[in-house]
Amino acid sequence: MTNIPQFQDVESAYNRIHQYIHFTPVLSSSAINQIAGCEIFFKCENFQKVGAFKFRGACNAVFSLTDQQASKGVGTHSSGNHAAALALAAQIRAIDAYIVMPENAPEIKKMAVKGYGGKITFCKPTLQAREDTLDAILKSTGAIMVHPYNQNEVIAGQGTCALELLQQCDCLDAIVAPVGGGGLLSGTSMTAKYLNPEIEVIAAEPEGADDAFRSFQKGERIPVTSTNTIADGLLTSLGELTWTIIRKNVDRIYTCTDPDIIEAMWLIWERMKIVVEPSAAVALAIILKHKNVFKGKRVGVILTGGNVDLGKLPF
Amino acid sequence: MTNIPQFQDVESAYNRIHQYIHFTPVLSSSAINQIAGCEIFFKCENFQKVGAFKFRGACNAVFSLTDQQASKGVGTHSSGNHAAALALAAQIRAIDAYIVMPENAPEIKKMAVKGYGGKITFCKPTLQAREDTLDAILKSTGAIMVHPYNQNEVIAGQGTCALELLQQCDCLDAIVAPVGGGGLLSGTSMTAKYLNPEIEVIAAEPEGADDAFRSFQKGERIPVTSTNTIADGLLTSLGELTWTIIRKNVDRIYTCTDPDIIEAMWLIWERMKIVVEPSAAVALAIILKHKNVFKGKRVGVILTGGNVDLGKLPF
Repeated sequence: MTNIPQFQDVESAYNRIHQYIHFTPVLSSSAINQIAGCEIFFKCENFQKVGAFKFRGACNAVFSLTDQQASKGVGTHSSGNHAAALALAAQIRAIDAYIVMPENAPEIKKMAVKGYGGKITFCKPTLQAREDTLDAILKSTGAIMVHPYNQNEVIAGQGTCALELLQQCDCLDAIVAPVGGGGLLSGTSMTAKYLNPEIEVIAAEPEGADDAFRSFQKGERIPVTSTNTIADGLLTSLGELTWTIIRKNVDRIYTCTDPDIIEAMWLIWERMKIVVEPSAAVALAIILKHKNVFKGKRVGVILTGGNVDLGKLPF
Repeated sequence: MTNIPQFQDVESAYNRIHQYIHFTPVLSSSAINQIAGCEIFFKCENFQKVGAFKFRGACNAVFSLTDQQASKGVGTHSSGNHAAALALAAQIRAIDAYIVMPENAPEIKKMAVKGYGGKITFCKPTLQAREDTLDAILKSTGAIMVHPYNQNEVIAGQGTCALELLQQCDCLDAIVAPVGGGGLLSGTSMTAKYLNPEIEVIAAEPEGADDAFRSFQKGERIPVTSTNTIADGLLTSLGELTWTIIRKNVDRIYTCTDPDIIEAMWLIWERMKIVVEPSAAVALAIILKHKNVFKGKRVGVILTGGNVDLGKLPF
């Protein structure tokens, strides 16, 4: 990999996107601190635009394009937060966003993308169908692909979240972020280690989609072949680029079960009075499962998003 | 009524309690503003200690006592947020809190009071039993009664919420607060009208407990005899003291149905990613029901609390 994003790319991203993103608050809960036995600083990306950190990366990718590149629009395939994020970023830049979604995507996600003016094309719910459909659209429109995680501009954009968090809370001993495709984790780890080489960067992953954990153990990238977890934002496997950054900058990866995730999610809703999605609760879940590791420390946690179907809650 | 709380009492209350309470944030949602057709500033008392504005009034009452008065403790009967609020305020002052609760109170409320060190006495679930039980305890202990709403110190304490809101947002055209016993509404209306006589103060009440609406229409206080609403924080009727303040300072009262409340609650959870209880959603519900009244205005809304049983949500 010749071209890996650096901290300077995160700074450039922040200068590029700060006028479009929310500077999200950091919240704490004395009740949760007491239960966890450490001091936790929750970076609330559930309050970010489109309800997830994904807007940072999508926004950086869209605003990194030259006017000429941008003029043909952007495209991606996604059934999740990245789709809405890219649609909104494109809407702000007043260009087209072509979003390929599996026909069985949740109605609520389709509505979100439509609401931001995204042009949706539905396809069969297979990776092959998604990639083929998107390829055809990119060819016919000249739109530029924005990958949900395995792309420099996206990683640098996600890194701005840790940049803010470390401004908001100095002297963190550790920072915990969930990992799916690794866009957030790679951006977070690279940013955090640059600003404070002493900080521990710890990844949180559901057992039902633990490719990062297994890749880390083996020392080589092992994509998941099947997944089974309530954390629907963490189903994808690491990309080549995110893996390269993560293996260099992440200290440890812990996993947890779905019941752990649901318990942590309940705790955040009940004690902090905020809505977070299952994927966002994975970080607290691993802290509660490994209290000895975090005991007495100051721990930053990225609450990645708050997009849940309120009609289908796990409690 | 010879002794009605004045704005100066709210200022004194604020000086007395500000070190114990959270200075809660004001949040806005462009999505909700678009739906409502006005600009809404939500004062987030769901983030207040014990999860509700009630902590302000209880805290002011407890810290208004002389050391000698306080030494015997405080007492109240309540099955709701006031019980937890009084228990915590007493715990901070290191005095006893005697809480009379109906034996059928929700387990989650009992746990909260116990968690703050409150001494609970259970009684039959009737007003008579609650009052008799509390009277006996006050007599035997010498503890001082803190009323949930019909008491100067409590009203002045609740007024500090509007005091903060009007510091945080200038040029509000209107302020909307829900009404049950009227502690919050009386404190809010008196404070808001003192600071800005031009501001409209509007009350929001569930149809199933609409004594304030009917009292306002008739020009005299008409307590409710039976109630039926999901907004379990708004079941009580106005007191003599709160009614005296409200009839002088409140411009209008609107009512709404339980489906209106649930719709507004859903909207707040989904779009703002915060947890509010049904009683807190009543203010947004009446705004959405009377869009013409609020069109284009800057409206402050007090989100009163966030204590819901997550296992028993209405959606």
